[in-house]
Amino acid sequence: MSNAIILLSGGLDSATCLAIAKSQGFTCHALSFQYGQRHAAELDAADRLAKLLGAVEHKTIEIDLRAFGGSALTDDIAVPKDRDLSQPESNIPVTYVPARNTIFLSFALAYAEVRQARDIFIGVNALDYSGYPDCRPEFIEAFARMATLATKAGVEGEAPYRFHTPLISMTKAEIIQTGHALGLDYGQTISCYDADESGAACGTCDSCLLRRKGFQEAGLPDPTRYR
Amino acid sequence: MSNAIILLSGGLDSATCLAIAKSQGFTCHALSFQYGQRHAAELDAADRLAKLLGAVEHKTIEIDLRAFGGSALTDDIAVPKDRDLSQPESNIPVTYVPARNTIFLSFALAYAEVRQARDIFIGVNALDYSGYPDCRPEFIEAFARMATLATKAGVEGEAPYRFHTPLISMTKAEIIQTGHALGLDYGQTISCYDADESGAACGTCDSCLLRRKGFQEAGLPDPTRYR
Repeated sequence: MSNAIILLSGGLDSATCLAIAKSQGFTCHALSFQYGQRHAAELDAADRLAKLLGAVEHKTIEIDLRAFGGSALTDDIAVPKDRDLSQPESNIPVTYVPARNTIFLSFALAYAEVRQARDIFIGVNALDYSGYPDCRPEFIEAFARMATLATKAGVEGEAPYRFHTPLISMTKAEIIQTGHALGLDYGQTISCYDADESGAACGTCDSCLLRRKGFQEAGLPDPTRYR
Repeated sequence: MSNAIILLSGGLDSATCLAIAKSQGFTCHALSFQYGQRHAAELDAADRLAKLLGAVEHKTIEIDLRAFGGSALTDDIAVPKDRDLSQPESNIPVTYVPARNTIFLSFALAYAEVRQARDIFIGVNALDYSGYPDCRPEFIEAFARMATLATKAGVEGEAPYRFHTPLISMTKAEIIQTGHALGLDYGQTISCYDADESGAACGTCDSCLLRRKGFQEAGLPDPTRYR
């Protein structure tokens, strides 16, 4: 059984990613971040999911992304509601957090090096969020190349780090079907950009709209608790 | 005047790096980290240096690298003393902090994106610290390539990020001579891995030994306060 690090936000995608890593036989170490999200509900969800999905360890790192600002997810910028997501994205969404995945993967790399894990899972998806630069395959490939040079692996000639992005070319419906087949209870996940303190979803932000459509297209009941 | 981000630890190298960036006409934004160092003395030094060297802004980000462990700088592992540094390093030193520069540069990238800076300075040195994988030119080059793909720059076709490593092939003596010529008061910097709360240096850890030798070879008085 090899150790793997899985980035776990508490949302639908990262929970699916953890379920996939577990199904592939990895000993899973989950990693979450308290980075100034508006509510802690998704971190509570991450805690529950790590236990439910059999992670042997779950670390939550506090980092202050609000120190720089620049995103609707960390600042007092309104989260967009009821947008028409069938139109291609012409700009990077205001919910983009500068360099967030770079920072998250850097911590995952530190965690992997200390736990002697060579496998890191991240639930990025290039289809639904084409507006986010740090969800693209070319970013992940460049990060992987850098990661091995950054660490003991690059000096001592060990195996390179492997970055797994099992969701990267799935539709939301395919992600949901995959997790469903693995027995994942999506009622335990929180995707909303604007969830309330209890974790109830707004139903109208980009993330809620994509999620709701995903359940419809997957032909599965949507277990999301909307407020 | 262009904005630049300068990683500033409070030590000799990063202070020189800030003095160089300033001398090149950049509007300097300094970035430090509270990452579970044994003492806060070097962060106090970073505060003083940012002001002394004319940074327009100085942010200190708290991150918990102790959460993972794996280094003498963040754990209860003894810092090596009185080592013979004339012998080539055969192993990575225990003072190596897993993925530290990757994490630091990731935050610098976020800060740069928010401040619309394209230039990031880091005082890594490949000569004195050949044992650290994340101080090598090939690491910095791989990080730079990844950084542009990670951010709006890579999507919107803007100029790529430039990572400046002005010290990378200098000896410690050359670094000291450069800073001295720019009027930098090295008495304000703290390099010791094991400084006491007042900032007084031990004189015998690797960092103290290299620093002391640097002043000798530079033919300049050593202003370090030893305990």
